[in-house]
Formats: sequence, structure tokens, C-alpha cells
Amino acid sequence: MSGIVVQNIERARLETIDGLARCGVATVHEAQGRAGLLASYMRPIYAGARVAGSAVTISAPPGDNWMLHVAIEQLRQGDILLLAPTSPCEDGYFGDLLATSAMARGCRGLVIDAGVRDVRDLTEMGFPVWSKSVFAQGTVKNTLGSVNVPVVCAGALVQAGDVIIADDDGVCVVPRSNAEAVLAAAQAREANESEKRARLAAGELGLDMYKMRERLEKEGLKYV
Amino acid sequence: MSGIVVQNIERARLETIDGLARCGVATVHEAQGRAGLLASYMRPIYAGARVAGSAVTISAPPGDNWMLHVAIEQLRQGDILLLAPTSPCEDGYFGDLLATSAMARGCRGLVIDAGVRDVRDLTEMGFPVWSKSVFAQGTVKNTLGSVNVPVVCAGALVQAGDVIIADDDGVCVVPRSNAEAVLAAAQAREANESEKRARLAAGELGLDMYKMRERLEKEGLKYV
Amino acid sequence: MSGIVVQNIERARLETIDGLARCGVATVHEAQGRAGLLASYMRPIYAGARVAGSAVTISAPPGDNWMLHVAIEQLRQGDILLLAPTSPCEDGYFGDLLATSAMARGCRGLVIDAGVRDVRDLTEMGFPVWSKSVFAQGTVKNTLGSVNVPVVCAGALVQAGDVIIADDDGVCVVPRSNAEAVLAAAQAREANESEKRARLAAGELGLDMYKMRERLEKEGLKYV
Amino acid sequence: MSGIVVQNIERARLETIDGLARCGVATVHEAQGRAGLLASYMRPIYAGARVAGSAVTISAPPGDNWMLHVAIEQLRQGDILLLAPTSPCEDGYFGDLLATSAMARGCRGLVIDAGVRDVRDLTEMGFPVWSKSVFAQGTVKNTLGSVNVPVVCAGALVQAGDVIIADDDGVCVVPRSNAEAVLAAAQAREANESEKRARLAAGELGLDMYKMRERLEKEGLKYV
Amino acid sequence: MSGIVVQNIERARLETIDGLARCGVATVHEAQGRAGLLASYMRPIYAGARVAGSAVTISAPPGDNWMLHVAIEQLRQGDILLLAPTSPCEDGYFGDLLATSAMARGCRGLVIDAGVRDVRDLTEMGFPVWSKSVFAQGTVKNTLGSVNVPVVCAGALVQAGDVIIADDDGVCVVPRSNAEAVLAAAQAREANESEKRARLAAGELGLDMYKMRERLEKEGLKYV
Amino acid sequence: MSGIVVQNIERARLETIDGLARCGVATVHEAQGRAGLLASYMRPIYAGARVAGSAVTISAPPGDNWMLHVAIEQLRQGDILLLAPTSPCEDGYFGDLLATSAMARGCRGLVIDAGVRDVRDLTEMGFPVWSKSVFAQGTVKNTLGSVNVPVVCAGALVQAGDVIIADDDGVCVVPRSNAEAVLAAAQAREANESEKRARLAAGELGLDMYKMRERLEKEGLKYV
Repeated sequence: MSGIVVQNIERARLETIDGLARCGVATVHEAQGRAGLLASYMRPIYAGARVAGSAVTISAPPGDNWMLHVAIEQLRQGDILLLAPTSPCEDGYFGDLLATSAMARGCRGLVIDAGVRDVRDLTEMGFPVWSKSVFAQGTVKNTLGSVNVPVVCAGALVQAGDVIIADDDGVCVVPRSNAEAVLAAAQAREANESEKRARLAAGELGLDMYKMRERLEKEGLKYV
Repeated sequence: MSGIVVQNIERARLETIDGLARCGVATVHEAQGRAGLLASYMRPIYAGARVAGSAVTISAPPGDNWMLHVAIEQLRQGDILLLAPTSPCEDGYFGDLLATSAMARGCRGLVIDAGVRDVRDLTEMGFPVWSKSVFAQGTVKNTLGSVNVPVVCAGALVQAGDVIIADDDGVCVVPRSNAEAVLAAAQAREANESEKRARLAAGELGLDMYKMRERLEKEGLKYV
Repeated sequence: MSGIVVQNIERARLETIDGLARCGVATVHEAQGRAGLLASYMRPIYAGARVAGSAVTISAPPGDNWMLHVAIEQLRQGDILLLAPTSPCEDGYFGDLLATSAMARGCRGLVIDAGVRDVRDLTEMGFPVWSKSVFAQGTVKNTLGSVNVPVVCAGALVQAGDVIIADDDGVCVVPRSNAEAVLAAAQAREANESEKRARLAAGELGLDMYKMRERLEKEGLKYV
Repeated sequence: MSGIVVQNIERARLETIDGLARCGVATVHEAQGRAGLLASYMRPIYAGARVAGSAVTISAPPGDNWMLHVAIEQLRQGDILLLAPTSPCEDGYFGDLLATSAMARGCRGLVIDAGVRDVRDLTEMGFPVWSKSVFAQGTVKNTLGSVNVPVVCAGALVQAGDVIIADDDGVCVVPRSNAEAVLAAAQAREANESEKRARLAAGELGLDMYKMRERLEKEGLKYV
Repeated sequence: MSGIVVQNIERARLETIDGLARCGVATVHEAQGRAGLLASYMRPIYAGARVAGSAVTISAPPGDNWMLHVAIEQLRQGDILLLAPTSPCEDGYFGDLLATSAMARGCRGLVIDAGVRDVRDLTEMGFPVWSKSVFAQGTVKNTLGSVNVPVVCAGALVQAGDVIIADDDGVCVVPRSNAEAVLAAAQAREANESEKRARLAAGELGLDMYKMRERLEKEGLKYV
Repeated sequence: MSGIVVQNIERARLETIDGLARCGVATVHEAQGRAGLLASYMRPIYAGARVAGSAVTISAPPGDNWMLHVAIEQLRQGDILLLAPTSPCEDGYFGDLLATSAMARGCRGLVIDAGVRDVRDLTEMGFPVWSKSVFAQGTVKNTLGSVNVPVVCAGALVQAGDVIIADDDGVCVVPRSNAEAVLAAAQAREANESEKRARLAAGELGLDMYKMRERLEKEGLKYV
């Protein structure tokens, strides 16, 4: 099943992708029905980054980063590299040289269910990474994997060309064909939240704003 | 046992609470006899915050944040929300809307043995959170819990109105009735530490300052 | 086997040590044949520090920091304290007073397979620590350990006087007798990387630069 | 707060305790409103044991089993030893000699949020233990703790004299004053389950037996 | 995306399924190219079981086992229930009553990326379960999920009707359409292994049997 | 540093090794001063085994079991294979074919800081394994490691020819040159324990037998 590079993948429109980035992970996740989150152990190497891009997926053997070189050739402006090892691994597949190469191809970041290294350099370069671990452990280039095949990454199914949104809250995947609809729902949600935020800041209680008191009473909540 | 909101809880005096905040978690923990720490997996969402407040406690079902809305009504100036799920959970119970509401009620922060989201917004708002995880996973509002009942949070027993101190070292709970005595002990400890710090900075050894050499020799320490 | 303090340990030359610091953990680790890394759970208390020093090793009982006081007397300019507990422990063995004392003796940092506290103060003081946990839990001073004996720390064997390199990527140990050779190899590697970085930044692919295409084809990689 | 041994504790009646043992952990936990479970990492050293007893609680320093000797003197027929360390620890506090002594005093088992050793001997002796780890690591006898004070053990608050029920599903605590009522509820639950079991075994569906179809349809479940 | 029950799913032939069971997880996993394993934390509740069946998949909210009742109606002789929660959870979704009902419908076992309880009863009944945890924690029946939709379970993508093989080595999924081919490959592998086993038992070395000596020498292995 | 096979290693006498096996892990660990334990996550694949042997050590790349074939040629009657990966890994390096080969060479068991598979077969064969995980994930044979070099395995330093003792309590290493002395100390300890066991079984308290009452009183223990 390995040893395949899919070259022509479809991607969502860049405006859609950028719109999803602006909404952020928590809102997008809600907007698509509380689905698509990667596991919470996927953490950013530095705070404050918020990106979205089309997934160029990599299925790689544990401790072998050969396929990253293959994947970089497939990158287009606005893509995100996403790597899932075929067995659990925390080795440092990726460092500043690969990031330099990926950035030169228009890559916006890396999501990797394994380790990353050179994080000081990556931080200075402004190349964001969400990873399972930070670990200097090097890798080899001995065994084939695949590029742009479906992978399960940190518990989520990702197809090549799906939209990946990542920020301080974690990483979310939106299937490419749903991207427009999810963006619309996320933007509606955001508009709705602005008004709520103002009311809450003014001291109105969620109990009143969401009209929860009656339902709480019906469920039997007792104030003592 | 659930479905109860205790409305009138006693709190420590604000000066006492603020004094404990100034001492910090490590000193307060020592001052009360090395007791009261929450588990070390409770980490702040950003570095540098140091707060103390009276606990408004929440016992909530896993993945259900309904009781947070109920608890916010119970907040007074100087309080800290503290949530313990009834079964292990890392979902994101709390985000920027709830933080906006809590801040409008005078809340100083959140301690949650579960997850939090919107951490970029919370950081910008200066609303500190200590949590088990950062996770965008949403929650429902279906099942009752309780507010201001005793809870076990990250391994520590907390009663409503106990003083919570939290900083980069973690989170500590001081029973309300001990707060004055613990503050006195903590301040004494701090005064003592200033002098020690100066002597150590000048090059004096702890071995001499604490007069450890004789006891080490008696225990059989060998220099080779 | 405990209760011993080895006083006169050999150290690598400071120029060598400082050269290794400049190369950083990932490069040094590669330069010595992908060996010497401590486990990835050893994380810095703040980002951006990069230090190297000669290891003053400590074997200590769980929850007992007595030997840290003994070890500080053995420090010389350019040393790093490295502590391994004899049983797994995450207590806070070390805080700002010990750091003040260690800095006064020329210590460059602490590597501890256990916990640390007062991390806000340590950050302000610029005293870097790599640890398994941040935990305010205090320790006692009841049982002997040893100083400058061989220890296994976070999965790596460390002899007193070995060179420790630590940065945002983790911690690496270089046996003292290999330090010169590893430095030479690391510097050669760095020189080599500068040129590669420039070519990659200019858009050249690793596939071409490393001449991987033929070998990938031979292994059976299929482009579809 | 440490250094105290409470000698005269109240216990539930033995018939009540034995009745709770017969119901088992899952049923008792449901019968008291889904409360009282210790964390799921508390596992039995061998399969098939099912016991209940009155808790003789121990608060002990990490890696120090001195208080176990003190606690054994407090045991009466039908008791269970329950130990919580004051800081996380997986050392082997307890082995076959202590078990021999405890059995001679009528003890029915050990629940320990730390480690145990000599598990082959304990299995042969039929002395059941629920622990966080199995680890041969020895402990010291240097620092006081307390006996029969309230402790938080694996996330649950336990008072001396509370009833502990333990089997292959884990460990549950029932406050002494609730023991009779919880037993009654558990027995009612069991009676109810026998009938249900027979109907389900005969092929009746839970969907019908519990009359769920209408509510599922109302919630919007679609069959396709 | 939730609230759907797919009723008519395709299954592999029972002879194929039973053949895969006889091969076992390790052999099947190798036979399909080292793919399809669920994470190693999925452990059997008792040793010695080896089963295969067609997956009836369940996507369920955390701490809510309502969909198990729905799924049981969809079971046919030779099926295996497979549940993935939509957020990480270790609650006990399943016990002896549900097992009684599932067995009455011909179910061969349960694979659940969450918890199970009543394990003593399940062991006596001979109903095998592979789970993430054993935990008596109860669940509610409040929120819809889906049945027979694709799920990611313990890191592996499973479609309804895929073949699940489970034994003491863990759990493996074989896509339904590959089942015949994988069985053929697995049986060929087994035949091959019998002969190898006999030669190894007679003292022949793998180095010779697999003709590794030349390649090892070429790679530079040194005997000293 | 890799690519080396040390062929002639020294071993302890078989009588010494067998004597250590009879004492068991907990006793041997105490007898050598509470040192030498491997981490508690090293668990046996079945209960009841107790073995000792001379370590044939293996340093292997993650996910690559080539060196196991090389190591088996180095086995002599009474040896134990001990494998440490150069980076954390839980893949199944070892199964029934390798066990067949190892047994034919007189091997008594395997200690592996990684995974094992075919555990049902290994159990039937009576070939004991202590491992970090049970996982069917296969490995490759691409990269050299070393045999009979010093390794750190699950946190303990092991030299080729050291004595490994393993039972239900875990795994302990005794340096070859200490084996006689440790055996003598362990046997003395055992003799001593028999008498204590009898007295404790007769109801004598440890408090009296070990004369602890005076020291407890001096430390300030209060009976209330």
C-alpha cells in the first residue's frame, strides 16, 4: 500500500482557506458539528500562530523522513505538510533545512504526529509546527512511504487536499468538499458571538441570555 | 448528590487572599506543611500569571459545561472558578465568551481538571487558566452537576470558599479557616528567605549556612 | 553504593564546551552518530536558552534534595548540575535559593529528571532548567545520595565531567573524551548546512540536491 | 498536619459491608449515584478477587512505608488498608511480610495509590491488592505520616471507616453513613437486573425493553 | 454528521472471516503489508481469546452509551461491535447486560476505544472485549451518535463491514474488499512459517536460513 | 558507535545465577542496596515466571529487529536477550519464530524496552518476556545496531554478561562482578525473613518486632 505519490490533488479555494484561518480552530470545529479535531497532544512549538492550508499528506515509516523530501516537491502556495507515521514515533523528522525548503515552495506549516527539532530556528523563521513531541532524535532515509494518500493523523482521517486549520487550540481538518459550507457556518457563528460577547461583558448572565433558568429548574436544580 | 447550588458561601478576607497571592504557590505550600497542591499536570495557559481567589467550585459531568453558566452567577469580586469533572475528561469546557462573562463578575481566573479553548483570546484578555489540557473539543448542556459543593480537583480536596493560589509553579488550595495562619507562616518564611538569598548570592554555601556538614558526616558521607 | 562525593573530576576544555553550545543539541547529536539524547520529556522551563557545561552529577533519593547542597560545593565555572533520582519522582527539588547559590559558583544550568519550582524567579534570573516536571512539591533532607558518580538520567548514561548541551530541542550528553572530536564533526556539519540552506531557500529541491530520485525509483516509488 | 494516629474509628456493620461486596463495584457505584470511584489506573494484582471492608487510611510520604507498620496495629477483622502518598510515587511500599502481618490482624486487602511488590507471593497467599503500579523499588522508614485521617486516594476522598469495595472493575468508596442506604439501592438494582438479563438473553432488544424507540425518533435518529 | 443508522451493510463471507481468525493478528497484519493495527493500548480483558467478525461500527458521544442499544439491533451472527467515542473517554460504556443482549444476537466480541465494566462476568460468559480501560464509571443515554458509519478507532479507520481480527496481540482491521486476498496471503505466510519453525527449532540460525551474513558484512558489521 | 558484535563476553557462574533467580527480584534489589531495577512499565507477558540469566545485550534502531538474529548466534545456555532501542519504540520486534530459535540456543527469556507479539504462542511455549508493550506492529531489517555493548534499558545500565533477574515484580540487573556478593546478601536476607514471617503470622506487630515505638514517639507521633 506504500510507495505511491499522488501528484494532482484538488484543493479548496484560497479565499475559503484564508477565511477558515480567520475563524480559528474552536469556531470551525463547532461549525462543522464538533468533528475533525486532532488529538489534544498536538501542540504548537510557539504560541500565537494561526494558519490554514491544503493538506499534502505523508504516510511515513517510524524514524524515516525520506518521504518529506518527496512531499516538498508536491507543495503549492498555501499548502500545509501533514505527516502520520505508520507506527507510533516521536523522532525529530523535520528541522530547519526542511523548513527552508518547504517555505521556498509556499508551505504554511507542518502538522506531524511525531517529533520536530531545531525549534528555535523554526520559531525565528516563523514556520509554525504542531507536533506530538520536540525531540532532536534524527531519522534515516531507507524505506518508502506514500504522499497524498488518506492518513489517520492523531486520531483524525485526513485526505490530501482537505483544509487544515491550526492555532493555539490545536488542529482541525475540514474535508475539502465541505470547506465552503463550513466557512459560512463559522462566519455566521462569529457574527453571533460578537453580540453575545458585548452583552456578557456588560454583565448580562448566560443563564438569562440563553434562557436556561426554566430548563434547569425542570431538571431539578436546587438552590440552597 | 448532584443538582445543588450552594449560594451563600463564606470567603476569606480579600487582604488575606491578596497576601497569599504575593507569596506564591511554592511558599504557601511549604508554609502549610507541604500540603494542598494540585497535580503537576495542571499547567497555566500562559507564563507569568500569579493570582489568588476564593473557590467557587463546580462538579460537572464529563463533556458538559452547563454548570459553568450556573456558577458564574455565584461569582463575587475576587473569586476563582474551579471545575472538577465527575469522570476524567479533557474537553474544552471554557472559552472566551465564558471568560468575558466571568470577568464581568470579578472573577480572577479558572482552575479546571479538564480542557480549555480559545487560549489565544484568553491570553489577550489577561484571563489566566490552569488546566489539564488545551483542546477545542466542544461540550453539551444536558446534565446537571453542582456548584459550591466539596470536590476533588486534580487530587486535592477543595471546599467552596477555600483560597486558591496559582502561578507558574502550579495550583495550591488553602482551607478558608487556615488562611490567616498560613499567610503569617508564609510571610515569615519569605522574610527569612531574603536574608538567605543575599548570603548565598555572596557565595556562602548552604552546607555552611544550614550547618549540614556534621549531620552529613554522621550519616556516613565520604569525600573521595 | 550511595554516600560518595567524588571531588576531583576531569572536565573538557571550556572552548570545546562553548563550541558545542554554539552548535546546539540537534547538530551535536547527529555529529556523534545519533547518540546521547535524554528522553523527550525533558523540557526547558523557558524558551530560547542554549547552554553547555561539564556535568556535576547527582544521584538522589526520591523526594530528597540534600545532595544538591553537597553538589553545589563541587561546582566550578562552566558546570551544569545534573540530577537523577533513584526512583521516579516529580517533586520540586530545586528553586530560586539553590539557583542563587549555584549561580554564585558559576553554574550554567540544571538538568533534572524530576521537578523544579520557583520557575518565574528562575526565568527572571536567567537560570535555565530542563526538567521532567514543574511542581511546587517540597522535598526533605534525610537520606544520602552521591555526587559525581555515573548516573542514568532520563535514559542516558552520564559520567561526571561529560559535556551536557541543552537547548529548546532537549538535552544531549557527550562523553568528555569524545568532546573534541564531536565538536569538529559538528562544526563540519554546520559549515555544510549553510550552503545547503542557501540552495534550498533558492528553491532547489532536496530530491535533486541529495540526488535521491534514482534511489527512490529503484525502491519502487510510483508517481500517479 | 501529619504525625497523627486516630485510634477509635467508627465502622459500618459487617453484614452491610459483606452485602456491598456481593453487589460488586459497578452496581454499588451506580446505586450511589455514579459517585465514589477511584481512578481507573488502580488495577488488581490478580483477577477474580472481590472484597469489601472498612478503610484504615494512611497518608504517607513518597517512598516511605513507616506508617504501614503503625496502621497495621489499628486493623480489625474486616478492614482494608488504603494508602495515599503525599506526592505521586510508584515505589513498592508493601510486600509479603506486611501482608502476613495484616492478614494476621484480619485485613482483607490493600488499596494503594502507589506500588506493591512480591506479587507472586501475595497471589499465592490470596491477599488482594489494587495498586497504581507493581514495582520492586524499596522504601525507607524516616518520616511520619498519619493514620485514619481523611485522604484523597486516586482522585476519591476517603474517610477512615468508609466502606471500600474492590473487584476486577476497580475500587469504589461508600461513605460509612450511607452504607445501609447504598446497599439497599444496590440490592434493588440487582434484583431488577436479573429479570432484564433473562429477557435480553431471550433475544428481546434493549430498544424495546427500555422503550427507547420513541425518544430516539424524537431526537432525530435516521435509519438509512 | 451524527444521528444516522446504516442498516444494510455488506459483510465478508464467514469462511473468510473464520480463516482470518485462525491466522491471528500478527500474521494478518503482516499479510496486508503491515497496516491496519489499532493502537497498542487496546488490551483484552482476559488472555487467550482469538476472534474475527464483521464490524458494526458505533460513533458515540463521550460518556453516552445510547447508541450501543441501537447498534445491537443491527447485529448478525458473526459480527463484532466496534465503538469509537467522539472525544477521548475511558468510561465504562458496556457491561454484562449489554453483553447478554449482544450474544443473543450472535455477536462475537467488542472492540472499544473507551472503557468496559463487569469484566468478571464478561470473562465467565466468554464474551471477549478489547478496550482502552476497565472502569466502572457509568454512562448516560442523552445524545445521538451514529451506527455503521466510518470511524477512526484507536488510530485506525474502520468502515462498517470491515473484518476485525483480535487476539492477545491486539486488534487489526482488514477492509472488506481485501479480505479474501489478505486471507490468501496470510495462509501462505503461515505455511511458510511452519517449515521455518522446524528448522529454527533444530538449531539452524536465522542468519543462515535468511542468508543475512553477506548483507550484514556489506553494511559493515564488525565481530570483535 | 553501532555495527559491533562483541563475541566473547564473561558470564557469572550458573549456580550464582540460579541462586539469584530463586531469591527473586525484590530481594535481590534490596540485597544490592536498592539499585538496578528497570522501570516499572516493564511487565511480563504472563504471570508466574521467575528467571535469571546472563545478558546478551542488543542496541537496535527503532522498528528494526535485524540485530536480534545476530544476537541469537551469540547465545549460550542460561542467557537472556535484552534489547534497548536507540529511540523510544513500541513495535513488536520479537515473536514465536525468534523465540523458537532462541530456545534452541538455551535462552531463558527476553527483556525488551519495546514491544513483543505472538504472546499467546510464547505463553504456550513457556518463553517468558518482559516488555514495554504488546504490539503486533512488524519491524524491518535495514539498519545495523550492536550486540553485547553497554546499553541503557528502561532506565538501567546493562553490560553484556551482567545477571538479569526477572519475575512478576519486574526486572533487576546485577553487575557480573557483584553477583556472588549480592547472592550472599540476598540469601542472608531470605533466611532472616523466614523467621520474621513466622512471628508476624503469629500476630506479633512490626512495631514491636522492629522496635519502632520509641523512634516514632521521638519523632512526635500522636495517638488520638
